[in-house]
Amino acid sequence: MSVLYVAPGACSLAAHSLVHELQLPIQVEVVALRTPDSPIHRINPLGRVPALSLDDGTLITENSAILPYLADLNPEAGLFAPAGSAERGQIQSWIGYLTSEVHVGGFRPLNRPERYSADVAAHPGIRAQAAEQLHQALAHIDRHLEGRPWLVGERYSIADAYLGVFAGWLPRLGERFTDLHNLARAREAFQSRAATQRALAAEALR
Amino acid sequence: MSVLYVAPGACSLAAHSLVHELQLPIQVEVVALRTPDSPIHRINPLGRVPALSLDDGTLITENSAILPYLADLNPEAGLFAPAGSAERGQIQSWIGYLTSEVHVGGFRPLNRPERYSADVAAHPGIRAQAAEQLHQALAHIDRHLEGRPWLVGERYSIADAYLGVFAGWLPRLGERFTDLHNLARAREAFQSRAATQRALAAEALR
Ligand SMILES: N[C@@H](CCC(=O)N[C@@H](CS)C(=O)NCC(=O)O)C(=O)O
Ligand SMILES: N[C@@H](CCC(=O)N[C@@H](CS)C(=O)NCC(=O)O)C(=O)O
Repeated sequence: MSVLYVAPGACSLAAHSLVHELQLPIQVEVVALRTPDSPIHRINPLGRVPALSLDDGTLITENSAILPYLADLNPEAGLFAPAGSAERGQIQSWIGYLTSEVHVGGFRPLNRPERYSADVAAHPGIRAQAAEQLHQALAHIDRHLEGRPWLVGERYSIADAYLGVFAGWLPRLGERFTDLHNLARAREAFQSRAATQRALAAEALR
Repeated sequence: MSVLYVAPGACSLAAHSLVHELQLPIQVEVVALRTPDSPIHRINPLGRVPALSLDDGTLITENSAILPYLADLNPEAGLFAPAGSAERGQIQSWIGYLTSEVHVGGFRPLNRPERYSADVAAHPGIRAQAAEQLHQALAHIDRHLEGRPWLVGERYSIADAYLGVFAGWLPRLGERFTDLHNLARAREAFQSRAATQRALAAEALR
């Protein structure tokens, strides 16, 4: 059986929720991060989640690969779109934007300034600029969502699940991001789904 | 007719080369970046390349979406893999790693420290740490390529085209990255292809 490795509250929540949305026969393993004896280090040399270990031993990492891979296992669920369609291109485009510009371009320098300078005196300036970049990157999405129910078309897709995770990280960042009303809506839509609730409960148990 | 917007020497070279690899009826438009009157601002509000404008007006951005989209227009060329296959998951995984960890996580702070701190005194420290992060991110790929002809399986794929672009940016960074022999090999393999040569020539003409 394939195993999906996730960590509580991490970006892997999108994939975790999709295992339930898509009713896939995939085992979910909740692991600790940044802990030398965590099983994640045996699975993924980078020590990161999400990581999907297929039954033949193939390892698939990266949200932008795992979310489409999972959706393609159950295309009838309608969370993605057929290969070659413009709709699939748009869904993958939002996922690409979230993984590069929002996660690594925005949240990472905000949460891990030590990865951006060895000089601790520089960290407050890095965090301030990261908050600015992150707000800009997210405002682009917020504008796109104005008057639209979902990122692409008339239904929830794997891109909305991924967005829901990052939108869920905003409240703990304080006032700065409360103007992004459409992201607040995306967060609520994601968090209120039965599949997300189930994933959140499993991660909280650990 | 669909139009692919690219800029000379930018990350859009991967998509540009694929238009020729896949013999697609797509027009390529070479534009300037960071220039207020560049046509890219009319096409993509973020002012970035690559950007693919489909004939119905749909805009697709992000390398991690455009490269798969192009490959799916000509699956017979064998540069990608069928939806639902583990091979497709692995190819998309390397693309995801390149777009997030290598491009935005490594090259961006190295080349644009001003996006990471408003304090110019912090920039040398940011660039030094970025070179370190970039080397780490690339060494992971270099190790994977040891004894392997290509990133996934026995043939050139869209992930190798994307890697070829970043590997092509390394020589101008000096000595620091010359130990990554498998990336030098990936660069040569990419740059010597007829399709890449044709794309490079078109970008140089501008
Ligand atoms: N580009 C990767 C990023 C994955 C990532 O950074 N995951 C975090 C959790 S949100 C992690 O595992 N961090 C642990 C670490 O970096 O040591 C992806 O999108 O899958
Ligand atoms: N995450 C984007 C990054 C695109 C990107 O940063 N493109 C650069 C060229 S390599 C660009 O257009 N820069 C101009 C700018 O940011 O103003 C992708 O993978 O497509």
